[in-house]
Amino acid sequence: MTKKASAKQKPVIGITMGDPSGIGPEVVVKALATPGIWKNCQPWVIGDETVLRHAIRTLGSPLKIKKHPDLQETHLSPKTLHLLQVTAPSERLVVEILKTASSLAMSKKIQAVVTAPIHKSNLVASGRHFPGHTEFFAAQVGVKEAGMMMVGGPLKVMLVTTHVSLRDLPGLITQERVETAIRLTHQALVNYFGLKRPRIAVAALNPHAGEEGLFGLEEMKIIWPAIESARSVGMMVSPPLPADTAFRKAVQREHDAVVAMYHDQALIPVKLLAFGKAVNLTVGLPFIRTSVDHGTAEDIAGKGIANPGSLLAAIKLAVKLARRRQQ
Amino acid sequence: MTKKASAKQKPVIGITMGDPSGIGPEVVVKALATPGIWKNCQPWVIGDETVLRHAIRTLGSPLKIKKHPDLQETHLSPKTLHLLQVTAPSERLVVEILKTASSLAMSKKIQAVVTAPIHKSNLVASGRHFPGHTEFFAAQVGVKEAGMMMVGGPLKVMLVTTHVSLRDLPGLITQERVETAIRLTHQALVNYFGLKRPRIAVAALNPHAGEEGLFGLEEMKIIWPAIESARSVGMMVSPPLPADTAFRKAVQREHDAVVAMYHDQALIPVKLLAFGKAVNLTVGLPFIRTSVDHGTAEDIAGKGIANPGSLLAAIKLAVKLARRRQQ
Repeated sequence: MTKKASAKQKPVIGITMGDPSGIGPEVVVKALATPGIWKNCQPWVIGDETVLRHAIRTLGSPLKIKKHPDLQETHLSPKTLHLLQVTAPSERLVVEILKTASSLAMSKKIQAVVTAPIHKSNLVASGRHFPGHTEFFAAQVGVKEAGMMMVGGPLKVMLVTTHVSLRDLPGLITQERVETAIRLTHQALVNYFGLKRPRIAVAALNPHAGEEGLFGLEEMKIIWPAIESARSVGMMVSPPLPADTAFRKAVQREHDAVVAMYHDQALIPVKLLAFGKAVNLTVGLPFIRTSVDHGTAEDIAGKGIANPGSLLAAIKLAVKLARRRQQ
Repeated sequence: MTKKASAKQKPVIGITMGDPSGIGPEVVVKALATPGIWKNCQPWVIGDETVLRHAIRTLGSPLKIKKHPDLQETHLSPKTLHLLQVTAPSERLVVEILKTASSLAMSKKIQAVVTAPIHKSNLVASGRHFPGHTEFFAAQVGVKEAGMMMVGGPLKVMLVTTHVSLRDLPGLITQERVETAIRLTHQALVNYFGLKRPRIAVAALNPHAGEEGLFGLEEMKIIWPAIESARSVGMMVSPPLPADTAFRKAVQREHDAVVAMYHDQALIPVKLLAFGKAVNLTVGLPFIRTSVDHGTAEDIAGKGIANPGSLLAAIKLAVKLARRRQQ
């Protein structure tokens, strides 16, 4: 991407402001006040004017809000928060913002969705509770398989399970879930990251990859069959590797991504190597969606001290992936 | 330690050669051929002449073996493998070597024991099978509480559980085990590392530390009470922290050590930050004992390619701790 990007080529990105009571609005305002962001994309904010104006005041930000009734193809001016106003009762605001983002992405008016953090308890739509953005967007667009990939520093890590207790974890490791995670990882590496023949490492569930059944049978009974199934359709997949080995080898570029069995297995190495700059990439949706790697952090909301690093990294990755699709 | 060490001050270290069929004898020979090692300690090897001679031939090492019938206080010559010969039938050799090391340490003829890797299946003594060196030494000297601390790069990590399947893991997280691990960590930081008021981080079992019971109750029901008990006797202990937070903060020196609930939780960060140089330190024994962080690696044994990095790091740490005791 050495050629100078014209306004037309700059991907149009929709950034959701997140939960009004969290740090979302603040990091959105901080991110949009970062000069670099305007060079490579046209950022729209999807949210509510009152909330964002409050965040601007809290931060003493020079940003001006320009409200638009709908998303027009226009040249966006820097130092301006171009807002697509979503009007809804407060208990439905977060959901309506996400619905707006999703339909703009589906109609290709925006090339990527970047999300600020929300409360999971607020994600109720049509009487159904969604555990997170990923599942909500998947349901919106009618996709069954969507996965969460953490991208940070030298690591790309796909999760087989996410927010579950360690006690419930082994029961959730099924051959189907592991196969899906491997397939989504392959898909992400090919479609998003442009690799022709990606090498995927699969982390084991148990220490020492179970040491031949001595500390657990999931490697032999569940993970190996899933790997063999992926190999049978031509994917390059490692055996179940002891987790410490899998991540070390990925850092040494012997693998392009790691499939992790559970949350902490993925988050420990990602946060160690890319703290404050890790991005959550949803794989499997018909549009590009990235997200911050942190929560709403109410304890520091309103203090103006929240770090926009992860949101900036999420925007940067979204722009990079959107540009690759334009080529 | 800027003063020049006289021969007399150099700690006497007993290095066990490990399993004859593994890489132990090779890394011992390689380590003793490293000039630096002689500067700060008097290294004795506890093992068998035939096995070590074979390793020397395999490596084409210039090291000469000098066999001693017992450990004499003598000035050891560099470039020489001073061997304390242990004679036993092959199926008992590994155990007799460890018994010899243990009794030399108990009688203070050596100031530290450094162990090369063994097969766990070989650790049978008096009809009892021991899962590892730690438990064997603890039984030898009549100690009930001994723990395994991984020391590598910026991290010191004590393990609450070690080689168990993820399925069995939650049942093994008891208040007593967590309390013991915290106490041993405190003890290690004070007695071994000379900290007056160490700050201990406790990693949670579940993601997001259970998110107030949403993903598991162990934090509230087991780990918190253990922490409160440790605090009640004056130890500085964190709340149960999400594991990724615990390790990141330890790397940033906000904590002096981390108590980890399970093997991979500890090993992922340690191996990422100190691969090939991590050391296993036993805490709770009446003597200093360090060990390599790797196994017997039969697949590369006899090829002369095994890396002595972890053994050298284990010797270095043993010497450092023994010197602190001399002061």
